[in-house]
Amino acid sequence: MSARVNSALIRQINLARVFHALREHPESSQRDLGRLTGLDKATISTVVAQLQDLKLVERSEQSKARRVGRPETALSIPRSAGILVGVRLEPSAIRVVTTTLAGAVLGHCQLAGSLDIDTALKALRATVDRELAEIGEDWSAVRAIGVGIPGLMDRSGRLVLAPNLGWRDVPIRAMLEELFGCPVEVDNDTKAAAIAERLFGMCRRTDDFIYVTGDSGVGGALFLGGRLYRGAGGFAGEIGHTKVVPGGNLCGCGRRGCLETYVSEAAILRRLAGLGIEAADIGAVAALAEQGHGQVRDLLDEAGRHLGFALSNLVNILNPQLIVLGGNLAVVGAWLMPGLERALMEQALVPLAAEVSVRVSPLGEDAVPMGGIALALDGFLAPPRLTVPRG
Amino acid sequence: MSARVNSALIRQINLARVFHALREHPESSQRDLGRLTGLDKATISTVVAQLQDLKLVERSEQSKARRVGRPETALSIPRSAGILVGVRLEPSAIRVVTTTLAGAVLGHCQLAGSLDIDTALKALRATVDRELAEIGEDWSAVRAIGVGIPGLMDRSGRLVLAPNLGWRDVPIRAMLEELFGCPVEVDNDTKAAAIAERLFGMCRRTDDFIYVTGDSGVGGALFLGGRLYRGAGGFAGEIGHTKVVPGGNLCGCGRRGCLETYVSEAAILRRLAGLGIEAADIGAVAALAEQGHGQVRDLLDEAGRHLGFALSNLVNILNPQLIVLGGNLAVVGAWLMPGLERALMEQALVPLAAEVSVRVSPLGEDAVPMGGIALALDGFLAPPRLTVPRG
Repeated sequence: MSARVNSALIRQINLARVFHALREHPESSQRDLGRLTGLDKATISTVVAQLQDLKLVERSEQSKARRVGRPETALSIPRSAGILVGVRLEPSAIRVVTTTLAGAVLGHCQLAGSLDIDTALKALRATVDRELAEIGEDWSAVRAIGVGIPGLMDRSGRLVLAPNLGWRDVPIRAMLEELFGCPVEVDNDTKAAAIAERLFGMCRRTDDFIYVTGDSGVGGALFLGGRLYRGAGGFAGEIGHTKVVPGGNLCGCGRRGCLETYVSEAAILRRLAGLGIEAADIGAVAALAEQGHGQVRDLLDEAGRHLGFALSNLVNILNPQLIVLGGNLAVVGAWLMPGLERALMEQALVPLAAEVSVRVSPLGEDAVPMGGIALALDGFLAPPRLTVPRG
Repeated sequence: MSARVNSALIRQINLARVFHALREHPESSQRDLGRLTGLDKATISTVVAQLQDLKLVERSEQSKARRVGRPETALSIPRSAGILVGVRLEPSAIRVVTTTLAGAVLGHCQLAGSLDIDTALKALRATVDRELAEIGEDWSAVRAIGVGIPGLMDRSGRLVLAPNLGWRDVPIRAMLEELFGCPVEVDNDTKAAAIAERLFGMCRRTDDFIYVTGDSGVGGALFLGGRLYRGAGGFAGEIGHTKVVPGGNLCGCGRRGCLETYVSEAAILRRLAGLGIEAADIGAVAALAEQGHGQVRDLLDEAGRHLGFALSNLVNILNPQLIVLGGNLAVVGAWLMPGLERALMEQALVPLAAEVSVRVSPLGEDAVPMGGIALALDGFLAPPRLTVPRG
């Protein structure tokens, strides 16, 4: 990587930094942005001029009289800067969220999905078209699209395997860019949701956290030192196959006692059915627990204990600040938490257990589409195909 | 962080990159360095001129006739550039290694350690003085010293706790800089050994690896994406307290069934003693296994199985390329390996288990002092107190 590329990279990092500061603090002055980003006056001026040229930033007289003396110019990201589209692509449903470039939600739309890839892509296009019509925008306003998919994705945007969709080795990003005619970013759905937590959720100031979700399986994503960690092959985060019960339930992976055979939505529904308790989905389980159903609460407490046991090893090894429960784990989070926290306290090293908090994600069913928004914004501000040099 | 600091940081990164390329490939031409580092011609010229000014690089006519045409000038790091000192500071022994600035070992020296900090520091100074006399160098040649210590270290060079030394809350770096009157870097001994593996050992081309060592406890260090990962509080890597046997042996941490109660040197010696087999240390255990002692081999195989079980969860979560066994685990590595590999194959997800290799460190008892050399070199080339900006 040449020194010229390095300078270009720094310009890009600075541009993204100023943009995000303005996104989080609208109506900032250049002086505010200097304070927020730590960049010097000259750099801020250059970056703001660039952003104005790109029509991503607008100046107006400062409305709030913050200081005595000469009035300062307030900067903001105008609505006219364009919109972002975030997508969760699943077999059962395709959920689309649109936001301003600053990440403010404009609308939602959901249509049925499909296991057939052509049908799914047509449905996806139809969902986005309908959503754009509903918010009164057309395609020319769309700056980028981000898509979260339940599957293993390589770094080039190729879907290696999506067991629930039955898709294998599909150049999904290229297909979506052709479908939409605009830049598309794709990622694994759990990783996308974790990125949303970092950009829009409860982890905006948290560099080191573990995100855990429980849908058909139990998935994880690791934010380490402020970055999503993907591992050597891109598959990091498979917390669902941590062994929590020696010789326990048989798992789809072929082993016994894996966490996800106790904690995923499917596992919880199956184990309740074994007790003669019918629940259609995790929402119904939460409703039963809410009503005070003893067996349901006990089973969720036990699931929380298994989850806490698996997380205690991870706390010892990664020393995170925060663990976030997302997806279906968030839906029943209130009833998992007591068993989970007990297991953490009993199993993790005392100073490490004392340092970590466990929280339930506030993003709800929009976590993955908001992850799509985060991916789209990252791709728009700094093409992720460019890599940072290593020292 | 200002743009000026960013440029300074890039100059520093480039300088370190060129220096390391030259360290690994002596007698390189500027053109070779361009190819090795990916930096452009102008940047290489600037950096080489800087290194010459600092007297860290010397030019000579190319000795090897590599190409037809105009002869190229070969560059190398001269012996006169100075030396580095690496230290392992332990209660029982203080081990010192000296190397050239390029990392070639000049000599070793070992004296007894002490639990009394003043005595230990005097012994340390005496050991380094003796080593310098043995290699015929004086203090003016020492560029930096790096020290690995068995304890928890914070990022400012403060020793938070060293249970085996009985030291707590000691500003060890400041004390050592005063003792030696030159720049000193300090780190936890296991982390130092892992850094040595990355800079001088088997991980020079490996960005994602787990280093595991087993002395009084079982320690770990994580290299993730080419960097040592320290966690939110600096304590990442506590693999020794992974629970491997439900309700198993009582551990010093107060829990039951921790890995280190089965795999550390102390645990192996204690368990052998329980079988009536006396061994003074891990070297004696290795000798018994070498002689074909069946009970010793069985116990090491079982320890390997427990280690493999703990590592299988870690492989699922971190997706590393390589696991390196260091310290005392390296001494008995050959007899741990079969059980370890069987457990990994049986417990980790198939594609992740297929991607990871397990190897025994070749650095032997010099792993920690060579870690000191690596710390010293890092500190010398790019003060680690400077942090890289986050995008």
